[in-house]
Amino acid sequence: MSNLIPAVKWLKKYDLKDLKGDLSAGIIVAIMLVPQGMAYAMLAGLPPVIGLYSVTLPLMVYALFGSSRQLAVGPVALVSMMIGTTVVNFAETGSAEYINIVLLLSLLIGIINLLMGLFGLGFLVNFLSHAVISGFTSAAALIIGFSQLKHILGVNLAGGHSVFHLIIEAISKIGETNIPTLIIGLASIVILFSLKKIKSPIPAPLVVVIGGILVVRLLNLEAVGVKIVGDIPGGFPSFSMPEFNLRNINALLPVALTIAFIGFMESIAVAKSLAAKDKYKIDSSQELRALGLANIVGSFFSAYPVTGGFGRSAVNYQSGAKTPLASIITAILMIIILLYFTPLFYFLPRAVLGSIVMVAVFGLIDIKEAKHLFEVKKSDGWILVVTFISTLLLGVESGILFGFIYSLSVFIKRSAYPHIAELGYLEEEGVFRNVERYLEAKTYSQVAIIRIDASLYFANMNFLEDKLCEIVGDRVNLKSIILDFSGINDIDAVSIGSLEELMTECKENRVEFYFAGIKGPVRDVLKGAGWYENYGDKIKYLSIEDILVDMKLLND
Amino acid sequence: MSNLIPAVKWLKKYDLKDLKGDLSAGIIVAIMLVPQGMAYAMLAGLPPVIGLYSVTLPLMVYALFGSSRQLAVGPVALVSMMIGTTVVNFAETGSAEYINIVLLLSLLIGIINLLMGLFGLGFLVNFLSHAVISGFTSAAALIIGFSQLKHILGVNLAGGHSVFHLIIEAISKIGETNIPTLIIGLASIVILFSLKKIKSPIPAPLVVVIGGILVVRLLNLEAVGVKIVGDIPGGFPSFSMPEFNLRNINALLPVALTIAFIGFMESIAVAKSLAAKDKYKIDSSQELRALGLANIVGSFFSAYPVTGGFGRSAVNYQSGAKTPLASIITAILMIIILLYFTPLFYFLPRAVLGSIVMVAVFGLIDIKEAKHLFEVKKSDGWILVVTFISTLLLGVESGILFGFIYSLSVFIKRSAYPHIAELGYLEEEGVFRNVERYLEAKTYSQVAIIRIDASLYFANMNFLEDKLCEIVGDRVNLKSIILDFSGINDIDAVSIGSLEELMTECKENRVEFYFAGIKGPVRDVLKGAGWYENYGDKIKYLSIEDILVDMKLLND
Repeated sequence: MSNLIPAVKWLKKYDLKDLKGDLSAGIIVAIMLVPQGMAYAMLAGLPPVIGLYSVTLPLMVYALFGSSRQLAVGPVALVSMMIGTTVVNFAETGSAEYINIVLLLSLLIGIINLLMGLFGLGFLVNFLSHAVISGFTSAAALIIGFSQLKHILGVNLAGGHSVFHLIIEAISKIGETNIPTLIIGLASIVILFSLKKIKSPIPAPLVVVIGGILVVRLLNLEAVGVKIVGDIPGGFPSFSMPEFNLRNINALLPVALTIAFIGFMESIAVAKSLAAKDKYKIDSSQELRALGLANIVGSFFSAYPVTGGFGRSAVNYQSGAKTPLASIITAILMIIILLYFTPLFYFLPRAVLGSIVMVAVFGLIDIKEAKHLFEVKKSDGWILVVTFISTLLLGVESGILFGFIYSLSVFIKRSAYPHIAELGYLEEEGVFRNVERYLEAKTYSQVAIIRIDASLYFANMNFLEDKLCEIVGDRVNLKSIILDFSGINDIDAVSIGSLEELMTECKENRVEFYFAGIKGPVRDVLKGAGWYENYGDKIKYLSIEDILVDMKLLND
Repeated sequence: MSNLIPAVKWLKKYDLKDLKGDLSAGIIVAIMLVPQGMAYAMLAGLPPVIGLYSVTLPLMVYALFGSSRQLAVGPVALVSMMIGTTVVNFAETGSAEYINIVLLLSLLIGIINLLMGLFGLGFLVNFLSHAVISGFTSAAALIIGFSQLKHILGVNLAGGHSVFHLIIEAISKIGETNIPTLIIGLASIVILFSLKKIKSPIPAPLVVVIGGILVVRLLNLEAVGVKIVGDIPGGFPSFSMPEFNLRNINALLPVALTIAFIGFMESIAVAKSLAAKDKYKIDSSQELRALGLANIVGSFFSAYPVTGGFGRSAVNYQSGAKTPLASIITAILMIIILLYFTPLFYFLPRAVLGSIVMVAVFGLIDIKEAKHLFEVKKSDGWILVVTFISTLLLGVESGILFGFIYSLSVFIKRSAYPHIAELGYLEEEGVFRNVERYLEAKTYSQVAIIRIDASLYFANMNFLEDKLCEIVGDRVNLKSIILDFSGINDIDAVSIGSLEELMTECKENRVEFYFAGIKGPVRDVLKGAGWYENYGDKIKYLSIEDILVDMKLLND
């Protein structure tokens, strides 16, 4: 039973003294989620109520199946924006068709997550390197931030894939600004920042939401063109199956895959950091299954894709959540709000929701990380910058793809042209080191000791051959080449073939090869290729010293 | 001048005694190219004459700009088939629109190759591993072979993306077989194989082409339903620009990229193997520029994509080609044939062309390679098999993509869960080795010596942390962990951060970290991260011995 529904485990041994923390966290997150859910739904091009629907059943499902005790799932800014910018290619924003496609996307994302979880494919998120993610997130935050300009200015902006389109359009329409809307928007941005800075115990979004509703209602600002949320259909969402056909699914699949990956990466990162604080383990496959089920169930009840969010989970943790019961409490409160309190939000100005999104994503822009990467490793820094710029210019989907391809190219280029060092003997320390870094290292005219700092595979053998041929060509007295294999962690069949050819060719030139420090896993592969029989005397040495002793160049 | 047109170099110092070889190779390749060009064009869904156009100007352009002396460019089976199976999605086979799209594809491929050459991106072909290529080629050969069934049987087969569709359709239509066509087809297959086996000096394709023409003409087989090549418009192709719009280009780009990659991989592999035989160098960027220009120029003169071919280049080399003049001679002969001799091929049966393709691709199926890979390295063998099966089931484009993603997954999985060994001291040899492989290795209760066989990056740090925490948890007396960094060829900023955290945590448990044998490139990165200041005493050691001596566990 506890294998089928992991929640059984923590429910069985639930400690009543955790209830206080769970209850207070559940309530605070619910209060936070009302404006956030509506704001993110708007960002995704959906009616605000869909955002509220998304924090009911999916939260409960995750609480039952997840492995994190404090992760607060729900709509997140990044995923919402990706939905907003991609689904618009399939249907008109706000239409019934649009909502249907988003729900279908939710179903697909759920299925992808579930399958990845069942097949233990969580490691696949490593496709995207940290630098790509960091550059992408900062750019996406800028795009999201600027996309809210229309709500703050109170004008219609068609927007586009890139930030620059948005800015140009906003400037050209600056004359149409609705002044009351702008004042509300700017005021709530100031309030959100200030309350965040003084670490107010009252949730800032709640303050601006209540303030916004009161101001619009009391001053009757709707009449002067301030856009409000309006009617939110009350009640619990009814069961419905997203409509689909094969063409739809084919077209949505790349989007669904991208969102499923990005969403899961954010979620697992948050879950792990919270788990580390409370010293327990996160099971990434179980997380995938839980998120998958949450989205599948959600898609049948008008919920759009959810995943674990940074800010929300941090609030959940700090408010004392000890078990997933906190999320269940949140979900119950959301259902109560949906059943009885939606009319309260009628006068909520959209500018307030826009400002909540803006301030939320502002924290995602990470300039420090870029600086840090450039200090530690330039190539990682450039990957971040390239991904950042390409995301700004090409939009989120193409941007992250471009960043990924660029990072892969850097990686392939590096592994195709690996670092190779000629070693000399440091007599005092008794070790072999790069002669370019240790000028005192002793070398031998008839022996070249070469260390290769990369696993060998088909793609870098050409480079290695060239380098070794150069060495053989340059040195007249050369009799032997010793390859230090201590840095070679892996080898493939093609490179073994190339090595054999190289050895035969060099033998014709009277240069012999020796191999030192071959590791177990590489030894196993060489055994399969018959090297124990054919080159036993060349690969038997455990260290470079042994070979030099055998050559009588070094004393035992 | 010789930088702009590399041919100037070899033309300047052309040795007249090379002329005999170049002339004979040029003639033999031309004879071979007439049927091959027509057959491959048919495979690509094009009128046979396009295949002849493709071996005129593009050959001359390649001869002027390429770096290989013996590479014979022209249409190849693999690329032709990829064109045939993909362009059919954009226009009806054989229509003017179809031809236009193929020429546009040729232009795109040329531009991609040229750009890759100008930016020195030849290393990008390493995206595809050897095992993927091998599995893909074998599967594609099967698909190509079976796709010729319609010509051999003389029936109309719509075909599909997968081999199984083809076979099922062929069986269902077996009753419609045209017996004379079948006899011609089978006879030419037998002749092609036999002449190949006895290493006949007369080119086998020429024999079956002449035989086929004579038989059809003398027995008037056209009247009994044997399909023939028919009218080939004579004369040199006129200049024309492929028509295009942005939507076309967008849709064709993935196809063009795939073909450009695959085509270049085949070409560079052949060029390199011939260059190795004659001991000269191939410049991969120059090759890309030459192929790019050849295809760009070709696309303006009704030529479809060309690249260096295996079989043809081997024939060129064996027939004595010494310089690219051989290819220029071939091209001139082809132009003469186009001007005066196309009516000769009127009665050529299509079944003969089909049999030439079938026999040509049969040689590409490589079962030995699969066996070899399984013997040497199982995971590479599985990559080959997965790519082979996915190509058969999903078709060439999706098949190679699937194979690529699978090979990437294997790679990522392996680097996310690297091999980690605990080391012990072999007193006799004075080296440290895996205690599981060397049971006699001496260990110390208060020190764990751990060797990590992978470069460290964000994706494998979790695994490493888990492993190290396990070790710290298991051993009560543990005071120090020595990490052997000799196998760590690279490190990224995220993993440095994780290591720092780990060291702080373990310090609380009174376990200290030491690092041995850090390589230069890794040292540089650690320096950037401030480790020289913060952990100078932990990373100063060149070898594990030094640390143990300092700990007084080993004598100096």
